[in-house]
Amino acid sequence: MRRLVAGPGRVAICDECVTLAHDVALPAGGPAAGDLFVSGIGELVTNDPRRRGLLGVINDAAVAIREGRITWVGPAAEVPRRYRDLPELDCGGAAVMPGFVDPHTHLVFAGDRADEFSQRLSGASYLEILAAGGGINSTVNATRAASPAVLLVGAVERAGFMLEHGTTTVEIKSGYGLDTTTEVTSLEVARHVGEQLPIDVVPTFLGAHVVPLEYQHRRETYLQVLMDEMLPVVSRLASYCDVFCDDGAFTPDEARRVLTAAALFGLRPRLHAGQLGDTGGVELAAELQAVSADHLEYINAGGADLLKAAGVVAVLCPTVSWSLGQRQAPGRMLWDRGLTVALASDCNPGTSYVANMQLVVAVACLEMGLTLEQAVWSATRGGALALEETNKGQITTGAVADLIVLGADSYRHLAYRPDQNLVETVVKSGGLVVGSFHHRGFPA
Amino acid sequence: MRRLVAGPGRVAICDECVTLAHDVALPAGGPAAGDLFVSGIGELVTNDPRRRGLLGVINDAAVAIREGRITWVGPAAEVPRRYRDLPELDCGGAAVMPGFVDPHTHLVFAGDRADEFSQRLSGASYLEILAAGGGINSTVNATRAASPAVLLVGAVERAGFMLEHGTTTVEIKSGYGLDTTTEVTSLEVARHVGEQLPIDVVPTFLGAHVVPLEYQHRRETYLQVLMDEMLPVVSRLASYCDVFCDDGAFTPDEARRVLTAAALFGLRPRLHAGQLGDTGGVELAAELQAVSADHLEYINAGGADLLKAAGVVAVLCPTVSWSLGQRQAPGRMLWDRGLTVALASDCNPGTSYVANMQLVVAVACLEMGLTLEQAVWSATRGGALALEETNKGQITTGAVADLIVLGADSYRHLAYRPDQNLVETVVKSGGLVVGSFHHRGFPA
Repeated sequence: MRRLVAGPGRVAICDECVTLAHDVALPAGGPAAGDLFVSGIGELVTNDPRRRGLLGVINDAAVAIREGRITWVGPAAEVPRRYRDLPELDCGGAAVMPGFVDPHTHLVFAGDRADEFSQRLSGASYLEILAAGGGINSTVNATRAASPAVLLVGAVERAGFMLEHGTTTVEIKSGYGLDTTTEVTSLEVARHVGEQLPIDVVPTFLGAHVVPLEYQHRRETYLQVLMDEMLPVVSRLASYCDVFCDDGAFTPDEARRVLTAAALFGLRPRLHAGQLGDTGGVELAAELQAVSADHLEYINAGGADLLKAAGVVAVLCPTVSWSLGQRQAPGRMLWDRGLTVALASDCNPGTSYVANMQLVVAVACLEMGLTLEQAVWSATRGGALALEETNKGQITTGAVADLIVLGADSYRHLAYRPDQNLVETVVKSGGLVVGSFHHRGFPA
Repeated sequence: MRRLVAGPGRVAICDECVTLAHDVALPAGGPAAGDLFVSGIGELVTNDPRRRGLLGVINDAAVAIREGRITWVGPAAEVPRRYRDLPELDCGGAAVMPGFVDPHTHLVFAGDRADEFSQRLSGASYLEILAAGGGINSTVNATRAASPAVLLVGAVERAGFMLEHGTTTVEIKSGYGLDTTTEVTSLEVARHVGEQLPIDVVPTFLGAHVVPLEYQHRRETYLQVLMDEMLPVVSRLASYCDVFCDDGAFTPDEARRVLTAAALFGLRPRLHAGQLGDTGGVELAAELQAVSADHLEYINAGGADLLKAAGVVAVLCPTVSWSLGQRQAPGRMLWDRGLTVALASDCNPGTSYVANMQLVVAVACLEMGLTLEQAVWSATRGGALALEETNKGQITTGAVADLIVLGADSYRHLAYRPDQNLVETVVKSGGLVVGSFHHRGFPA
């Protein structure tokens, strides 16, 4: 299979996408917006609520794009003549859908924790893993010790893998620095990922991931450092502030203080809630009207109704529970009670290294009980809503033209073939950025 | 990442491995045996019982290969001088392990059943799926209707994917023809896969997969056709005979008749047993001293002891139970009672389309409770023993030189990163057949 990465002006680079992407002169903010006429779509997932079914599927469809925005969507037979002069991407009957939007990742880190993972598979307890040098502190140490360049290469590699697998927008959290310098570096690295690759990055400050070791007996001092020293600096680098509110991390009272202080700096709240137990994170997310409450393995129906009433998006991470062998969030219950559900990879070196949203969709179906349609919607439109990117995750007039062409005639192949990368072509803001494609109107 | 396919004489073809493999003049029986000195191995999994631990790991190792066989294995510091003139593959500190041996697949078929899969995820019952045209009969119809060339292209594509993901020996069953012509074609296609690609194919006749629709009310007639008409023809094309012995397929008495007749034609017995219930297949496998009993989701400790006493290898298919949301075979119990356990993909268009043994290893750990070491052993040495290929699945003097180089410093990354293809280079019979490699001594 040929894989191309195209920068602005569609400079195609064969094969070595991630490596060579460093050398491509991409403008800050991602690739230039493109014009494109996408034809030969056998099955188009629009996520348009005005169309048929949850996914708003159109068969034998076409999409017109001007300056990175979708200007027309509909049956191929009805394409207005004025779009016929656009550069054409002929999908040859393949299925097309919105790019994945991954609303919860921890992409900036150094080192790995493969040893810890295999120890866990052999039955080692968390304490044994800590004693063997594992756990989050090992990643914090490795991240602090790494140069910004090393952190950037790792993050770009992972984001490039995501892009090749169809993710066009990714949230990236800090949270393995836990000191001002490394938290700032982590957020700068996150921003650079979006400059080096044609993928949109939404940065989140997660200084309140855990209390770092050196403050273990002085948690109040760490909170003061976080609020007085970190927040003023990171507020210009991040869009959101997140807190890991759970046993062993931060209490609801602590999380409330951090998120309230962050709001004064313009950082809107997200929350890791209910992953390890029913410890008040869900109620706090509702109280603060957080943009999202993430994980929710221990949420119950009452908590679900609170989130729904407060307009909080439920961000679920099925590959984490799968990797840990722990309980899954009740995704189907949340969906059935009317919450907006989003799926995320939560890619991180400790609890789940999965970065491919196609596998996240499969695990959401196989382990969490979502239907394939619910999982596909949650991995695209759901993710966009979790990041307040209301003009993404759907293929409708006016939306950002982020879409993926599958090597299959239907989205139904997604969970069916979980070991395949079904994404053959990625269109970001109307530009061909990863792909195996037939084209017309481009320089040969 | 650069991917090369090298045929005899090491004709490297960039990128389009599977497609272009058709055009490479490979000799019948696979690629020419090679000479190679594999250096810079940071961690070598040998599966040699005389070495440390289950996987017989050597750090900082080297392997010498002459004419496709391993002639020396050991610490890099102890390499005899006489191997220094061999062409050298420098692994740069990466982990190396035996190629995967996948002992149970159904690679020859036409069509797909993605619709059925998504219906099942939405809660459709088996009867509803049958009513919508799904189930095994839809694959039988599509396979009968397909030309041999179409069947070959599909099987080569899937086997090429397997090879790229590190499988160097694969068992392929017929069983979607269920008439003499199509069963023969299926086995011929299986053999051709091994001629077109540098992968060893072990063909198995599975005419007793189910009773085909046209014999639904004349099952005795089908058995006669199978034994009198098919067996004499397929016996020169297959090594084994398999029967799906379970509710809805064949009874133990029918299976015994088929396997006894097949033995007269030199086809040794394998058995699909205990997948859907405790229906006598396990006991029959022990009685007949089958080479393997496959699936075993419903086996108990007594059945395990019967298989062990009879020397039957337990072939487990974790991705099938995962895809179906059904119970897993008690892999850990079988291992702990001393059976030889093998892992297989069971790649097929109905119950699990997974072909990548790396994902099979991950699911065996996450869903079946095997340790990573048990899963890696079962996916390599276990698979070889399930196919009576005693000179495969280990990196020891005299073994066939089938080995894979990982893009990681340890096999421990396998279940840790289940969405990655960690296989960077594949060496088949000493020849570089898939790879991203530094080489010395080859034509540039």
